[in-house]
Formats: sequence, structure tokens, C-alpha cells
Amino acid sequence: MLTTSRLDIADARTIIAAATAKAQEIGVPMCIAIADDSGNLVAFERMDGGKVTSITIAIDKAYTAAAAKKATHEYGTASQPGAPAYGINSAIGGRLMVVGGGLPILVNGAVVGAIGISSGTPAQDLEVAQAGVDGFKG
Amino acid sequence: MLTTSRLDIADARTIIAAATAKAQEIGVPMCIAIADDSGNLVAFERMDGGKVTSITIAIDKAYTAAAAKKATHEYGTASQPGAPAYGINSAIGGRLMVVGGGLPILVNGAVVGAIGISSGTPAQDLEVAQAGVDGFKG
Amino acid sequence: MLTTSRLDIADARTIIAAATAKAQEIGVPMCIAIADDSGNLVAFERMDGGKVTSITIAIDKAYTAAAAKKATHEYGTASQPGAPAYGINSAIGGRLMVVGGGLPILVNGAVVGAIGISSGTPAQDLEVAQAGVDGFKG
Amino acid sequence: MLTTSRLDIADARTIIAAATAKAQEIGVPMCIAIADDSGNLVAFERMDGGKVTSITIAIDKAYTAAAAKKATHEYGTASQPGAPAYGINSAIGGRLMVVGGGLPILVNGAVVGAIGISSGTPAQDLEVAQAGVDGFKG
Repeated sequence: MLTTSRLDIADARTIIAAATAKAQEIGVPMCIAIADDSGNLVAFERMDGGKVTSITIAIDKAYTAAAAKKATHEYGTASQPGAPAYGINSAIGGRLMVVGGGLPILVNGAVVGAIGISSGTPAQDLEVAQAGVDGFKG
Repeated sequence: MLTTSRLDIADARTIIAAATAKAQEIGVPMCIAIADDSGNLVAFERMDGGKVTSITIAIDKAYTAAAAKKATHEYGTASQPGAPAYGINSAIGGRLMVVGGGLPILVNGAVVGAIGISSGTPAQDLEVAQAGVDGFKG
Repeated sequence: MLTTSRLDIADARTIIAAATAKAQEIGVPMCIAIADDSGNLVAFERMDGGKVTSITIAIDKAYTAAAAKKATHEYGTASQPGAPAYGINSAIGGRLMVVGGGLPILVNGAVVGAIGISSGTPAQDLEVAQAGVDGFKG
Repeated sequence: MLTTSRLDIADARTIIAAATAKAQEIGVPMCIAIADDSGNLVAFERMDGGKVTSITIAIDKAYTAAAAKKATHEYGTASQPGAPAYGINSAIGGRLMVVGGGLPILVNGAVVGAIGISSGTPAQDLEVAQAGVDGFKG
């Protein structure tokens, strides 16, 4: 058998709080999703003003970052026209997100979950996701 | 034009806290979803030990209760063999939930959102959903 | 964080071999799926003569038994007309299986994965699933 | 009427074993899927450490290579912006994979099945897929 560690609900709340603080700081209401190490949703919050489309996108960014063990913006680079993973954005019924804002969360080198952010620009989403990760590690 | 009222993220947290307290009291870790008046997710928490299948089911119970303005167990009655809504459980790709645990939340007679609970028996799910509603109104 | 145990690929092969032996004994070629504790597929085999429809059904029985921590035939009882979970069979896009043949696999009281069997009668599927579970524990 | 030849479960195990050996050699745990000539799954293994997203992607690469009788990386070339098959990656609900790692398996010029690999880079996936094909023919 394999033994793995994953985010619990208390961890998820800590990460969401840190992401929310950054989102407020930059003035962009966000959808914030936290997944466990298998990509399954642990917690989600849509800040007042967060976009309805971003509900699914944030959840799928967290899913992708956790289940593929990779930041979603790395897939963005790898899937450009002519690049090796071109076309992967429509995989898994479109759940495979290649837009920035999904970051895996690692402890001792192993992925224990992920955060997915959506409603701003991809750069803003990534900035808020990183703040969530930093809030967990801090 | 229409003007509507809907749950905000602070309301959602209040409702989740009340539902969580009841779930802890009865000893069943739950998935808890809060939707707005359009059925779109506002917040979600999977308590430690909540079921993976219940992530989608809780979200869909909240969606159904808000968007159909009806408790999901009422659909359970109405969709029995021979009853008028027989077969509606598979509508909307299976999102139309007819199992108890989804309750609309009303203010001044208007639906402003809903709560969806899953991981226990339908009776337990309903009890925890009601505690969430009561926590909001209290 | 939470620490969990899950079936690895060697465990999955052991379980599949035990299930296959039983399927050969009763003369029914089966589809055999093994999921981890989160419901995600670890291994799958379609015995020569196993049904094409059963590919998805076996995978979804394993998913349901692992992710809902319950034997699928228990859902069959609980979801009969008039019973509390009536209508749950169409949940999660129809992935929630209520037909016998899906069994969770527990170690020290915790679900570490599941087996899903399909191609025979539900009773045959359940018998083969149980043989798989027994092969793991033996 | 048509008479077709297709991989059986023993063939599938042989191919998986050859692919697994190569994956171990290059140090990348993979998801490995084998489809028959109709694109339907015959066998699947997720090596310990294989990605959760790659479960579906490996199965869909095998499906695409068998059912379309073409290596998935050939679709990658044909579906670039301006190329004739542009946009085909989202066909069939996103199951049509255009990323490398899916190879048809031919006997006497006829497709009898396919292998789909995912979890590494597309180049690594293709290398391991080829090792699986070679193991079958060897």
C-alpha cells in the first residue's frame, strides 16, 4: 500500500484566508478552490463579485495542479501551438486547465493538494494563488 | 428589470458553521455546499472524512434546491413511480437531485440561496441542512 | 494534514488475480476495476469475452464503493422506490452505481480502495468482487 | 460480414509489462492503457506515482490511436493552427487526443489495438508507448 498526506479542512481554510487577503489587497474578487492530493475539492469560496464562470475554472485549476502535480501556467507554455503538449487543454472533458492560477502545494517534495484561483487576469490569479501557498507554508 | 437578493460569502460561512456544528454533534463528517439564488456555488467545505462522491452530490443538492426553489426531498416524493415527476432525477445530466439534504433558504418569501448536505443518510443530511438554515435565520 | 493509505499497483494485481480466478471458476468473463481510496482507477482488466458496457460500469462501481465507502448493493437497497435514497442512481452524471458488484476494501477500518466487477448478473458480480477482496486480505 | 483481430488480455499484459520496464528504466511512473481495435479498454495500470489526470488521458490516447488508426502525435501535427485538422482536439467531448503517447498496434497491416501512455513529457510518453509496441511484436 501507499501512504500519502493531504490537506485537511483546517489547512484549506488557512490557504483560502491568505488568498482572500491578497485578492482584497489587489482589489479583485476571486473564486478560490482547494483540492486534495487526488484533485478532489476540499473547500471553495466565491468572494462577493467573483465570476460565475470562475467557479468551475477555479475548481478545475485546483484539480489540474493537484492531479497533474504541475502549475497550470506550465501547461500554458507547454501547450502553445508547435509545443509538445499542444491541444491538451481540451483533455478530460476540458477539465485540464492550462491557464495560470493553479498551483500544487508540496510538503517534503510530495504534492498534498493544490489551489486554483479565477476571476482576474491569469497573472492576478497566479499572484493570489501564490499568496495562498505562502500562507500555508508560513 | 428584476432586483434579487442572494446570499453573500459571509452568509455562506455562517450557514456552513451552523451545519458543521450539527454534523459534529451527530458525529457524521459532511460535505456542505451553499448556492446563491441562481443555483451557483458560493462556498463549499468537505469536513475531514466527508465522502468524495458527496462533493458533487452536495453541490447538486444546493443547486437543485436554489434553482428549483424546492427542498430536494419534496422531489423525492414527487418522482416516485407513478407520481407526476417520475424520472426527473436524471434531468440536467443527473444534477437534479431528488434525495433529501437540499433546502432552499428564503427571506421574505423569496429564495436567496440554498444549502446542500451529503455524506450521511438522507435523514441525517436533511437534519444538518436544517441546522444550517436555522443558523442563518437565527 | 490527513494521512491516508491506498492500494498500490501490486495490491491491485493481487486483487485482480483473485477475482479472475473466481470468474473463471464460475465461467463468466468479467470486467474488473480497482480504485484507490479517492475512487481513482489503479488497474483494470477486461477478461476475454467481458462486455464493452461493463468497462465503464466496473470502473464506476469501484469508484462508488471507494469514494462513498459503501458496497454498491447497499445503495441498491437504499434507493428502491419509497426508500430514502431513491433516485441517487443518476447522481454524478450516472457514475453513482447502485447495482451490486462494487465493494470497498478496508484495512484497519479505513477504506484503502475498492473493487468493481461487471459482466455477469449482479449476484455473480458481487461473488467475484468478494473473491477479489478475500484474495487481498488472505 | 467483417472478421477482425484484436488484442486479448494476455497480449495486453505483455504490452503493459514491456511499457512498464521502459518507464522504470527512464524513471517516470506512467499510466498505461491498452485498447482493442474498436478503441475499447482492455487493460489499464497506473504505476505507483502515475498522475491522476493521466488516467483519462492514457485511456483516451489508446482510444484515439486504435479508433482513428493513427498515432496521436500525428494528429498533433495535423491540428496545428492553419493545418487541416485544426480544432479536432476538442472532438468527442475532448477524447480525441492530439498529444504524443498513443500508438496503434498493427498486425499484417491491420490495427488490432493501441497503447496510450501518460504522465511524462509527450516525448517520454511516446518512448514508453513504442517500447510497449516493440514488446508485443518481439
